[in-house]
Amino acid sequence: MQLDICLSPAQLSLFDLKGKTVVIIDVLRATSTINTALDNGVKEIIPVSTIEEALEYKAKGFIVAAERGGKKHEGFDYGNSPFEYMSEATVGKQVVLTTSNGTRALKMSEGADTIITASFLNLQSVINYLEKQNNDILLFCAGWKDRFSLEDTLCAGAIAASLEEFTKTHADSTFVAKHLYNSFKGDLISALQQSNHYKRLQNHGVNNDLEYCVTKNIFTSIPIWNGKSLRLLKED
Amino acid sequence: MQLDICLSPAQLSLFDLKGKTVVIIDVLRATSTINTALDNGVKEIIPVSTIEEALEYKAKGFIVAAERGGKKHEGFDYGNSPFEYMSEATVGKQVVLTTSNGTRALKMSEGADTIITASFLNLQSVINYLEKQNNDILLFCAGWKDRFSLEDTLCAGAIAASLEEFTKTHADSTFVAKHLYNSFKGDLISALQQSNHYKRLQNHGVNNDLEYCVTKNIFTSIPIWNGKSLRLLKED
Repeated sequence: MQLDICLSPAQLSLFDLKGKTVVIIDVLRATSTINTALDNGVKEIIPVSTIEEALEYKAKGFIVAAERGGKKHEGFDYGNSPFEYMSEATVGKQVVLTTSNGTRALKMSEGADTIITASFLNLQSVINYLEKQNNDILLFCAGWKDRFSLEDTLCAGAIAASLEEFTKTHADSTFVAKHLYNSFKGDLISALQQSNHYKRLQNHGVNNDLEYCVTKNIFTSIPIWNGKSLRLLKED
Repeated sequence: MQLDICLSPAQLSLFDLKGKTVVIIDVLRATSTINTALDNGVKEIIPVSTIEEALEYKAKGFIVAAERGGKKHEGFDYGNSPFEYMSEATVGKQVVLTTSNGTRALKMSEGADTIITASFLNLQSVINYLEKQNNDILLFCAGWKDRFSLEDTLCAGAIAASLEEFTKTHADSTFVAKHLYNSFKGDLISALQQSNHYKRLQNHGVNNDLEYCVTKNIFTSIPIWNGKSLRLLKED
C-alpha cells in the first residue's frame, strides 16, 4: 500500500483520492469530538459546511452543533467540545455538526473510496483497520484555516510510523511527520502546548479538552462516512 | 519583527506579502545556483516562468538556462546545476533562468517589499541581513510541485532558529522547521539523503550538486530582486 500525508487542505488538490482510504485528522477537536459523541451513543453525525446549512437543520428540530474560531457559534446549543456529548441528552440522536476545519476536510474528501476519522483517542484502532484494508492511504490533516498544524501532523506521524512495514512512502511530509512523532511521543502534551491551536483554545478556557484530546486509545471504535453521515464502523 | 514560514507555494495565498521581506528558498537547486552564478561573475539573472518565454530570450541571443523535472530542458545549453556557472563563459553576462519551482516562487512573491534568495551557501549572510532590516519576514520554501520539501524547510528552520531573539512567531510551521533543523544540523547531508528531491536528483547523477548545496556559508553575498532581475546586494 502507498501511504501519503496531506499536511493541510490547501494541498489536497495534489492528491488523487480515487480508490483511496482517506483518514481525516482534526485532533483539536472535530475528529476527537466526533469519536466521543458516537462512542457515547450519538446515532450519527451529519457534517455540514456552513452556518446557514446548520441553521436550516436547526429549524427542522435537529440537535445542531456549530463551532467557529474555536468557540461555540452564537445561536447554537452545542459546540465542538467532546465533553458536550457525554450526557444522556444526545444518546440515540442525530447530531448535525459544522466546524472550522474538520467538517470541511470531510466534505473535501468525498471523491475517496472510504473515509474514516482518526484522533489520538482511537489511534490504535485506526492503525489496525488500515493494516487490514487494501486501499492506498491518505492521511489528511485538517489543520487550521489551510495552515499546517502540529497536532494533526503528530497524529498522522503516529499512524505512519506504526504502518511503516505495511506501506510504501517516499514523500518528505511522511518522513517529517514520523520524525516529529518519534521526537515528541514521550510527552505529547508538552509538544502540543507549543502549538498555535492549543494556545488559541487555551485562551477560550478549554484546558480539559486539550488534555483529553491527546489521550491515546480511549476508544476502539472508528467513525466511517456512509455518504451522508458518520457512524461507527461495525466489525464483520 | 514577525517571522512566518510558508511551507509550499500552495499555501502562499495565506500570507499578505505587502511590506514584507520575502526570502525565497530552493536549496535543490535554484537559489543555490543563482547565488553561485552571481558570485562567480554573472551580471544578473532574469527569471522567467515558462519554457516559451525562455525560448523567446534564446532567440534574442541571451544565455538561457532551463530546468524541468530536475533535468536540463531539451534545446537549452544551460540547466540548474551550480557547477555550470563557475566558468569564464558566463562572467559579465545576463542569464535567463527558468526552473520547476524556484523561479516560479520568485514570480509569486512580486507583491512583497523586498525579495532576496537564500540557501545554505549564503545562510549566515541572510541571517545577518534579516537581523538588520525592519520588515516582517516570510521565509518562502519553494518546495517541489507545490509539495512540502525537507531541504527547504531545514534551511528555513536554520534561519528562524538564528533569528529567534529578534522575531516573534507563533505558527506551527516555524516551530516544526526549527525543530527539524535542530534535530539534523549535525549531519545535514544524512537528513537530506532521506528527502524525496535528493533521491530524484541522485537518479540524474548529480551527486556533486547535492553535496555542494548543503555546504554552509560558501558565500557572503545576497541575491536581491530589483523588479526585473536578481543581482547581488551591494552593501552600504
